[in-house]
Amino acid sequence: MALQIYGDSISGNCLKVKWTADRLGRPYDWIETSVLKAETRTPQFLALNPAGQVPLVVLGDGRPLAQSNAIILHLAEGSDLIPADAYERARMLEWMFWEQYSHEPYVAVARFHVHYLGKAVADLDPKLVERGRGALKRLDDALAQDDFLVGGRLSLADVALVAYTRVAHEGGFDLADYPRVLAWVARVEAALGIA
Amino acid sequence: MALQIYGDSISGNCLKVKWTADRLGRPYDWIETSVLKAETRTPQFLALNPAGQVPLVVLGDGRPLAQSNAIILHLAEGSDLIPADAYERARMLEWMFWEQYSHEPYVAVARFHVHYLGKAVADLDPKLVERGRGALKRLDDALAQDDFLVGGRLSLADVALVAYTRVAHEGGFDLADYPRVLAWVARVEAALGIA
Repeated sequence: MALQIYGDSISGNCLKVKWTADRLGRPYDWIETSVLKAETRTPQFLALNPAGQVPLVVLGDGRPLAQSNAIILHLAEGSDLIPADAYERARMLEWMFWEQYSHEPYVAVARFHVHYLGKAVADLDPKLVERGRGALKRLDDALAQDDFLVGGRLSLADVALVAYTRVAHEGGFDLADYPRVLAWVARVEAALGIA
Repeated sequence: MALQIYGDSISGNCLKVKWTADRLGRPYDWIETSVLKAETRTPQFLALNPAGQVPLVVLGDGRPLAQSNAIILHLAEGSDLIPADAYERARMLEWMFWEQYSHEPYVAVARFHVHYLGKAVADLDPKLVERGRGALKRLDDALAQDDFLVGGRLSLADVALVAYTRVAHEGGFDLADYPRVLAWVARVEAALGIA
């Protein structure tokens, strides 16, 4: 059985999984699963992922796996998307946990409210905007030295962080304020063939 | 140079690192760093971790590493706290990312507001309480089959999730409502020698 990816095409978290599978040349069936239509809350879906979240993959042997970053770490094991050096691997994980805790909850959530729920940027919670800006600023600072986040080359840290950064403008953030981030987004998109 | 752990003793995220180092018999210096006193915002600290968060470790060779779950994954590499089986390892990571996205922001944040900032439980954002309860319910369901979260034995998934679950009552949650969670907390505390 081929890998099955349950994903919503508007979700950066889901696209991370698609990009990683594509980059690895791993065949898969994409099962479009809409969050807005509550397709992640059906009894069938909840049986696969009690957290009611996409992405979810069903591996070749029928076993399910959830959480975008856990999925891409599993798919990419042994590939060049994960640094061989233990410290670089740890730094990659640091960025991936930081993404889910300090970036996605602001940058992705602002985009969801503005682009998909129709909220005005001016009506966003100021804390959300401030923290989203803080996350983008931190990325910009980190990219002062290197072309990619870890070890000078593409890794899952870039895949995880580019997902919502590249569409941050849809949440009212202006990437022109973060020129190194803007250049890095183009670089990662080119490396992933998604430009 | 011994491992240096910059941590705040009231933070579950920091205690994860202490418990893991203790379990592994890894010597370290604990450098108490108070969040409430803004010791994570000094220029010296920000030079080590631009995210301004504890825990932060400085490894034996002087290189810094942040994010609690990235740190414990690095420290425990090759130990029995990380399953040897690839799928179990992926499930462990699934729980660890879920912890930071869907558990800590509710269970730990409620505790911080109530226990450290003196807010009344009744004044907590109802969404925070509802999502914290949802996270504890999901844990309770997951523990219906097994004594530990992954592979029937202690792993970093348990270390990560027990950190704030064991003090959930300090945020107004009643673990008596989640009897399997209550029994699991005791089991993990005993396994870690922190009961």
